[in-house]
Amino acid sequence: MVLNINKPFHLESGEVLPELTIAYHTFGTLSAEADNVIWVCHALTANSDVADWWPNTVEPGCFLDPEKYFIVCANIIGSHYGTTGPLSINPTTGQPYYDTFPQMTVRDMVRAHQLLAAHLGISKVELLIGSSLGGFQCMEWAVMEPDFPRRIALIATSAVTSPWAAGFNETQRMTILADTTYGTNSPDAGMRGLAAARANALLSYRGPAAYNLTQADQGAETDPENPFRRRVHSYQVHQGDKLCARFNAYSYFRLTRAVDSHDIGRNRGGIAKALADIKAKTLVVGITSDILFTLAEAQELAQHISNAQLETIESDFGHDGFLVEHKKLNTIINRFMQL
Amino acid sequence: MVLNINKPFHLESGEVLPELTIAYHTFGTLSAEADNVIWVCHALTANSDVADWWPNTVEPGCFLDPEKYFIVCANIIGSHYGTTGPLSINPTTGQPYYDTFPQMTVRDMVRAHQLLAAHLGISKVELLIGSSLGGFQCMEWAVMEPDFPRRIALIATSAVTSPWAAGFNETQRMTILADTTYGTNSPDAGMRGLAAARANALLSYRGPAAYNLTQADQGAETDPENPFRRRVHSYQVHQGDKLCARFNAYSYFRLTRAVDSHDIGRNRGGIAKALADIKAKTLVVGITSDILFTLAEAQELAQHISNAQLETIESDFGHDGFLVEHKKLNTIINRFMQL
Repeated sequence: MVLNINKPFHLESGEVLPELTIAYHTFGTLSAEADNVIWVCHALTANSDVADWWPNTVEPGCFLDPEKYFIVCANIIGSHYGTTGPLSINPTTGQPYYDTFPQMTVRDMVRAHQLLAAHLGISKVELLIGSSLGGFQCMEWAVMEPDFPRRIALIATSAVTSPWAAGFNETQRMTILADTTYGTNSPDAGMRGLAAARANALLSYRGPAAYNLTQADQGAETDPENPFRRRVHSYQVHQGDKLCARFNAYSYFRLTRAVDSHDIGRNRGGIAKALADIKAKTLVVGITSDILFTLAEAQELAQHISNAQLETIESDFGHDGFLVEHKKLNTIINRFMQL
Repeated sequence: MVLNINKPFHLESGEVLPELTIAYHTFGTLSAEADNVIWVCHALTANSDVADWWPNTVEPGCFLDPEKYFIVCANIIGSHYGTTGPLSINPTTGQPYYDTFPQMTVRDMVRAHQLLAAHLGISKVELLIGSSLGGFQCMEWAVMEPDFPRRIALIATSAVTSPWAAGFNETQRMTILADTTYGTNSPDAGMRGLAAARANALLSYRGPAAYNLTQADQGAETDPENPFRRRVHSYQVHQGDKLCARFNAYSYFRLTRAVDSHDIGRNRGGIAKALADIKAKTLVVGITSDILFTLAEAQELAQHISNAQLETIESDFGHDGFLVEHKKLNTIINRFMQL
């Protein structure tokens, strides 16, 4: 579904979108009292169809149980999946924005979704949940509107984007810029750069344990017939191609910049002071092998949010553990929902 | 200095270089008995001037003491610093090789250096030492010619390039290929891709602890005036530019492929069998925070080499710890030289 807002939307940067479309999915039925809502915030290149990108979660008995809850997920500003972004038509010019699309922040993403919540008649949710960039949105929303979420679940995320994570993002933007087709007015601009950027990102999402487990060569050795061919090579190329078939480089460029701007304490007197404003019952989940958003960062969140508990998931799948370890997440979140 | 070999050099791939030049540095004086040699094998983008790229090591009292030892370091095949590589003139065409330069392996690098050793009248060394790709060369040499090194020191290296490390390398080559200037007959071909590839590599060389330590934003928070500016952004760009000012994309492409082909057990019945051939007294050094060549890989080396000892360096600087932690290395290696 889409919500069309035919009036200007002011971004944190001062720039203005003349109009805003928000694409969203819902699952289940909103109760008469509108008191059964779970709002899911999605991560970097995902979309509003949470049942698609978070398998084994939107099912009876699982934490996104559509028989029990009304589940909402909206595509974020600047993305590729229906919400206004670089490939949308700029009403002022009648042409796609492409590289003229303004830079948005996580706070802009949340303010857009607040308009959708109002439109849907939702003033309170039972759970606001997100991983990675999705977690950024949840914590921003819980700080901006402390009475909106009764509970929040912050999975594989952090109070501020670390220099390390921002270093990966800058490198990925350098990679896109190295592709001289980037900047041309085409939806396919910068695709080779985007493929290489995605391959880079995958390294940070999966980490050494997952790579060495899933991409081992035959007999744990290189191919004696062709020492230059490694299984992981085709994996990296394949992952790059897969993203290019479903995304665009302009969105990717801006979304990673939005990630780098994330700092829950910005203009709020610092991280501790900002997180102290959160009233929601909070679940923080860290993944042991996550090299992008570390356990130490999960601990920092749990330490500064007054009503928080920290859970750790043992996994070899790094940051992507939030997608892979749905069984463990299910146990943890179902238990949290009983509190 | 250079050694010119005016006859064909046969590569492991079956391809042939019509002639071969080897650039090298020496420090100190070769004893009459030629029994005071330390041979240093350099890593990916270094050169033969070990005093330049490995600061605080080629000094009296340090492990590369030029008053005591005759130190040799030669530039590897395919590199940028004087030894035959992609920017060298192909005598068959009278033009630089560029993208027609054949793919070499670590074993090719070692066989070239064996020609230099013979030329210098060196049939045995007191120590053969290298880090990273330098370590690959040392272990290959010690397997190919077990009586050549009396001792070997293998620092921050591994018996086989892991899928994880090869994933980084493939991503860097994808990044270079995304730069459409790569492949043109110019020494500057692919430079934007090379810059982004280097930025990617730096992440793997330094790791999260070093990045978060050295690239922290003011007050550990993002800049409230410009939330999109992070200190690490300019660091990544600067590191890319620095490499572009001193290297070429053709060499980088081939050297990373040579790294990916590294498997000490290839065509030798596996890792354990190959490493069992090493007769040298062996020091294996792992760095605690090295995410590219892990402690587990150092342990694997020490386990399979019969006369090996393992030392661990505590450091926040990851793989680059081998360059940064010269004091700790000095203590460890000087002690090892007494054995």
